[in-house]
Parts: sequence; structure tokens; C-alpha cells
Amino acid sequence: MTEGAALGKPGYDPATYRPLTWSDHAEAFRSGADRPSDYLARCLAVIAAREPKVRAWVTLNEVAAMPAAEAADKRWREGKPLSPVDGMPVGVKDLYMTRDLPTQMGSPLYAGRTTGEDSACVQALRLAGALVLGKTVTTELGFSHPGPTTNPFDPARTPGGSSSGSAAAVGAGMVPAAIGSQVVGSVIRPAGFCANTAIKPTLGALHRGERQGLSHSHLGVHAGGIEDMWAVAYALARFSGGDPGFPGLYGPEAAPPAAAPRSLIVVESEGWAQTDDATLGAFERLLEAVAAAGVTLVRRTDRADVEALEREIAESLLLCRDICGWELRWTLRNLAYKDVTKLSDSMRTRLELAEAMSIDDYRAALAKREAMRSRFRAVAGTADAMITLSSAGPAPLMAGNSGAGEPGITHMTGLPAYNAWTSAIGCPAVTVPMLAVGGMPVGVQIVGRHDEDWRIAGYARWLKESVAAVAG
Amino acid sequence: MTEGAALGKPGYDPATYRPLTWSDHAEAFRSGADRPSDYLARCLAVIAAREPKVRAWVTLNEVAAMPAAEAADKRWREGKPLSPVDGMPVGVKDLYMTRDLPTQMGSPLYAGRTTGEDSACVQALRLAGALVLGKTVTTELGFSHPGPTTNPFDPARTPGGSSSGSAAAVGAGMVPAAIGSQVVGSVIRPAGFCANTAIKPTLGALHRGERQGLSHSHLGVHAGGIEDMWAVAYALARFSGGDPGFPGLYGPEAAPPAAAPRSLIVVESEGWAQTDDATLGAFERLLEAVAAAGVTLVRRTDRADVEALEREIAESLLLCRDICGWELRWTLRNLAYKDVTKLSDSMRTRLELAEAMSIDDYRAALAKREAMRSRFRAVAGTADAMITLSSAGPAPLMAGNSGAGEPGITHMTGLPAYNAWTSAIGCPAVTVPMLAVGGMPVGVQIVGRHDEDWRIAGYARWLKESVAAVAG
Repeated sequence: MTEGAALGKPGYDPATYRPLTWSDHAEAFRSGADRPSDYLARCLAVIAAREPKVRAWVTLNEVAAMPAAEAADKRWREGKPLSPVDGMPVGVKDLYMTRDLPTQMGSPLYAGRTTGEDSACVQALRLAGALVLGKTVTTELGFSHPGPTTNPFDPARTPGGSSSGSAAAVGAGMVPAAIGSQVVGSVIRPAGFCANTAIKPTLGALHRGERQGLSHSHLGVHAGGIEDMWAVAYALARFSGGDPGFPGLYGPEAAPPAAAPRSLIVVESEGWAQTDDATLGAFERLLEAVAAAGVTLVRRTDRADVEALEREIAESLLLCRDICGWELRWTLRNLAYKDVTKLSDSMRTRLELAEAMSIDDYRAALAKREAMRSRFRAVAGTADAMITLSSAGPAPLMAGNSGAGEPGITHMTGLPAYNAWTSAIGCPAVTVPMLAVGGMPVGVQIVGRHDEDWRIAGYARWLKESVAAVAG
Repeated sequence: MTEGAALGKPGYDPATYRPLTWSDHAEAFRSGADRPSDYLARCLAVIAAREPKVRAWVTLNEVAAMPAAEAADKRWREGKPLSPVDGMPVGVKDLYMTRDLPTQMGSPLYAGRTTGEDSACVQALRLAGALVLGKTVTTELGFSHPGPTTNPFDPARTPGGSSSGSAAAVGAGMVPAAIGSQVVGSVIRPAGFCANTAIKPTLGALHRGERQGLSHSHLGVHAGGIEDMWAVAYALARFSGGDPGFPGLYGPEAAPPAAAPRSLIVVESEGWAQTDDATLGAFERLLEAVAAAGVTLVRRTDRADVEALEREIAESLLLCRDICGWELRWTLRNLAYKDVTKLSDSMRTRLELAEAMSIDDYRAALAKREAMRSRFRAVAGTADAMITLSSAGPAPLMAGNSGAGEPGITHMTGLPAYNAWTSAIGCPAVTVPMLAVGGMPVGVQIVGRHDEDWRIAGYARWLKESVAAVAG
């Protein structure tokens, strides 16, 4: 049994932590040596043991999940699984609709709300045979204000946000995969805080369902490893495609093998200046090991075009605040009409900032984003991929965390300073747990060109499998 | 009194028909010679007289509208209108949400549904001071299956769809403007059938609110003339901007003056072969008059690049069916889960066709659309604009109309064969009532390059003001 490690053991040790995995069970499911229903039962046992502290779930649907798992048992034994994720228990961030569970979006304004509908990703999971085991905690409306979830490696720390419950559920070994979403830093950051492997795909690559109101948000996948991450992402694309107008996730069904990059651009972004010395030190040691493995590293001091990219992306957090604020404005107005007191201070601030914008301000922000994308395209092709931290250090403590972030907005779930630039550019990013700082996990991202999701997942796999994690 | 013409007079005569207008009342509102509340009272009188036959409205909100009109009276008298449309009674297609009225989307699956929210366009109307007088009839979910609305010039004929009620309400002189939407041909076609002036703007130029699930749908404006059309469109963009990720409608606040184009490309599209001889004859006579006014006309037989564009757009209806089918699939699945018997045959066919598609089919359709856009860009700059019919003839009779359209989909509200190509390309189109065929109005479109909405509205204004309508 390699599943559910770290159970009852506070703190993170990369040498002993074993994430829950699914894809490596396929042969056992076919032979009957293991069954999806038994797998589910083990997941439920971990949930029962750990949920009181971790609080990853808003709702669970064990009742419907078990018969669905048993149906998957049968299909695997008959050699006819609906997909590689047939029978896989999956958590779904509570921003996405499920017709059998409420969709409450982390806001009291949506308390008890049922829609009777499935988001496109949920339809795809069901069509692929996966079990929608429950809804995972999100911050308020997927933005900054935190929910009750704690970090599976230290209950005094945040799991990150906004995909708090998805990251924590996977990190705690409750489920092998979970659906998250990222507007600024809501998949990669919490995934890094919780030792997940995760993908924020190319913009538009996975269908956001009805959640099309922001021009650069992404549906992402949290998992215990590259194989499961890819299996879920591929199933989502196969059955529900990408966002309207986008071609959807590219790449074959088979997860990418580990592939050593020849060259990586090291990106600092605005996160660098916010990062503690222990994390920076651990990351530099990791980079030394990557270089020692034969990878050419290119840094901002090495080349003018890389420095130009760094300068172009240096205020991505502020840019995201403006673009998302304007785009969210009409939604927030509607919520404010209903009961403004049920919005957090942080969300009210977002609305106030957005109301102060004119259409010309928004146009200027779009132009700035286009300039970032253009600069990225100019540089990205000069190396196989880019490498950077997934967060500005390990998950912060929840108590005494002022959450100071960009002006007017607090980030109680950690600063998304390493994530805003890839979100705005829309390029794919995969995080793998490569560092341990102060006994907590810290992720490292591989970032690639648009539509190269599969390729960078192979580089990330190589990094995880061929380079030793660094404890700082 | 120039308003509410055609009252009680079946049939359409361009020589006598006078649409309801608003912008020309500004001076009277300031001086007190007229008042928005009196204007509203006149609108309500027309509605009372004509609604039993026209059936343009799903719901009316006279109770809230009158005090809002009186508040506008005061602002105009004080010289401080919120915008040029302050106090204007406007109809809103029942696909858009209104927090004070149900949003039923032309489907029994949404009967009685209230959301308590305003779509972005509705927020913008309110912020501009306009009166959201009620919700206008849409076909089922904005697609093919018709509602109860009849054509204001002949109750035996369709008003067109899907913006049936908006087109009919404006054509009947009930309101000076109404909000519609166009995925394939749902603004320009019904506007033409009902003698409206209307704009299907550049893709993304006016905010569709939560309705972002289709990659080429558009919010449009129906009005009695260019000035009102522009005033409403400008107010929408000013207060709610464009779709997420789009810069929003460009152009100054002042409506464009009439501007004679130097050259126009005559586009036939797949509509030409579907068009009756009387309509073709009337259109050719109009083109003669346009040429006589000094405009150089370029036709497919004149230039290879125009012919290439014609070939590229020749199957736009089928392309729209595929793109929209795939994109609508997850929404329709949810409705089918609820009660498939409450979907029309036509809608069930759409779902079946979409379920037969793979992601690769969708990618091929997107590539085809991109090729159309590219071809359009290559040609469009060679003339000031393009000119074409708005529909394949006057509004068809409702009885005995088989509705045969593209394979598997019926069009009881008239064939959108002149509209699918501009919808897929996303270029702006403005229709003006230039023809009368068999005593019914037929519109003519001016089509322009992306973001040239204001410019083509000026050409359309010139056409309407400087070239005599042709009766066929």
C-alpha cells in the first residue's frame, strides 16, 4: 500500500511522502487483484480519518459513488473500461455545477444553491466513468477570501487557494485527483503548497462550462503524479473539449514519458522579490542539480530578451486584478444587489476598484496583456521550456497572516506572485513537488508554449523522476 | 406625431411607414415640450392596441417603468440626463436576465424562472437611465423553434427569429429600441422582416453577460433608425463594455453622419440561390440606384478575390450548425437530463448531431471558420464596405412553412442564409429597410471590417437617407 501516506504524520518529507495514484492500478483492476470499489473504500477511510482536520470537502456523495464504483469494477474485469479513469474517485471544486450536489461557490450568497445541472467538466468525468465523489472547498467565488480548509501537512497553515479543497484532498491522499481552476494562481500555488502534481493548461484547453466570464481563467487538474494528471485532463478534453472557440487540449491519450529538456529559461517574475531565503536557496540548489544533469539554464542576466520578458511580466498581479475586476464587475454588482454584506471585504474592494475603471482602462489592460503574450512568444521558442517556483515559499501560517498582496487585495491563502504571469499569458504550466522548506512542500513549475501541455508534462515528469527533491 | 405608424394598417409601404424614434426628442425633453413619461404612455398605448395580434412581449413591467420615466423627466428638465437614452423604453430579449422579471428563454424548461440578477446589458441600460420595459419573445433558447410572435406588417407571417419579439416590438412602434442577439441570423434577419434598423456588431463588442457559451454569438440592437441604434449600442458599451477579453464597441458617442461609400462589394453568399425573383429584382434595382449615386460596385464576377470569398463562405450555415452544436452540447445535455420532452424536435436534432461530433470535427470546423475570416480580411480592405440582402426575401408565411433549412434543422422563422457568414466571421453588419416585396419589408445589410461598426453605420445611414427604397 503506497496510498494515503503522511496519514497522521504532520510535516512533509519528500523522501517518504507517497501520493495516492490510480493509473498504476489498471492491471490490478483488470485482473481483479484490486477493484475500483475497494479503491473507493480506501479513499473513504482516509477521508474519514483526515477530513475533521483538513476540511477539504463541502459535500460528499458516497451513496452514489459506491454503486458507480461497482459498475466500474465490472467494466474493468470485462476489459471494457469507459476510459483509463473509469471508477476513479475525483473531487470537484465547488465552483463547478453538479446536478446531484449543491454548488455553493464558497459564498453565503450561494448557500444551499442547487442547479440540477452538470458543468461540462462534470459531464466529461461521468462519461469517462469517473466518480464525482464530492465538491471541494473553494475560496469565496474563487478569489481571495478563504474557506475552512487546512494544509494536509500542517493544520496551522493554508492549503492555498482558491482550489483549496482540491489541493488538500489530493495532498492528504483522500482522492487521486481533483478539479481546480486558476484565474491568477489558484491551481499551481495550492498544488505546490500541498505536494500535488498539477496542470494549469493552455488557455481554453479544458472546458470551463458556464464559467466563461473571465477572459483568462483556466480549469486545471490536481493529482498525485503526471500519469493521473494527464489521464484526467485527457478525459475532460475527449468528452467535453475546450472552451468555446478553442481547439481543446492537444496531445495523445498516453501520458508523456519523462523527457529531459536540453535547455530551460529560469523565470524570476515578480515572485522572486517576495520569496524567503530558504526557498530561494533550495530552488538554486535544485537548479544546480538540473544543470548537473545536463540541462542548459538561461537566466535574465544571460540574455537581453529574457530580461525584457521579466520586465514585461513584472506587474502581472496588478494586471490580473484590473482585467478580472472589470470582467467580474457585472457579476459582483448582481451579488451586491442581493446582499452586499455577504461579500467579503476583499471582494467588496475588488468591486470598488472595478467600478472606478473605464472601458479605456480595460482596453489598456488588454493591450498590456497582449504585449506580455507577444514578448513571451518571442522568447519561449529559444529554449525547450521555462522553470520557476510555484509559490513564494511554503504555505503561510493562517494565524497572523496579514495577507498583504497587490494594493487593495489581500491573499490569506498565499501570494500568487509566481502564477499571475502564466495565467495572463495563457501558457501551460505543470507543477511538481520538488522542494521541502521548513518541513513543508514547495512546488516547481515547468512552463511551456501554448498547446505544448503534453510536452511540458514530460519535462516535469523527468524533473520529478530524475532530479532529487531538495530540502531547504 | 410620427410615432406608431402602420398602426392598424396591414402591409408595409416604405413611402408612408415611419418608425418610432427617440433621439430626435432630446430638445423637447429638455424644454419640457415632451417628457419621457409621456413618451412611455404613448408606447404603452401602442402596445395595448397592437400586442393582442403581434405578441411581442413575454412580460411587461409598466409598474416600475412609469416612476423611472418620471425620474428621467426631471433629469432632462434639469439638463442632466444620465445618457442620451435616459428614459428610453427598451425591450430586452428574454434570453437576458432581469432581476425584476423572469427569464424564460423561450423554453418550457425555464418557465417561471427568476434569477434575481441583471445581465450586463440590462445593468448598462439601467445605468444609462433607460427603462427596461419588458422581456421580448425569443425562439426556443434563441435557436429555431418559434414563439407566438407575429409580423407587425402581416399577422400571418413570421417576425423572424430568434429575436422575434424585439424585432416585432420595434417594427410595430411599441418601443424605439430593443435588445436582440445573433448566433447565426437572429438580429439582422428579423430586423429586416420587421423594417427595423439594426446592428449585429463586431464579435465581442457588446457584453453578452452570462451568455458566453457560444464562440460567435453577438448582442445586437434593434431600433427605428441609425441614431437610436447607435445611442443604445454606445450606452451598452460605455456601461458594461464588450465580452470578456474584447475591447468593446469602438466609435464616438455621436451617431455617425450619413457617409457615401466610394465602393461596395456586393456579396451573394449562400442566400442568393434561396432568394425569390421579386426580391432579387428589387435588390438589383437598388444596386442600380446605388451605382447611379456614384458608388463603385464590385461583384463576384468582377474579381477573383471576391469570387474566392464567395466560395469560402458558401457553406456557412452548415459550419454554424456544427460549431454551435458542439458548443451547445453540454447545455443541451443538461436540459435533456431534466426533461427531454420539453425540447423541440429541432433542438433534439441539434443535440443528436452534436453528440455525433468528435473534438477533431470541432477543430476542423474552427479551422474552416478561421479560413473564412482570413479570406474576409484579405478582401474586405479593397472596398469601403460590403452590401448584401438581410434575408432571402420577405418574412415567410407561418402556415404551410416547412422550414426546410440546412440538413436536419428547420427554420420556421425564415432562413438565415444571408447572415451565417457574417456571424461566423464576426464582422459588423447593419441592416436598413430598403426594399418592399409583396407589401412586406426586406432589409439590406452593410457589412464592414471588424471594429468598423460606426463607419458602416454611417454608410447604412447614407443608404437609407439618400437612396430611395425600392418596391418589388
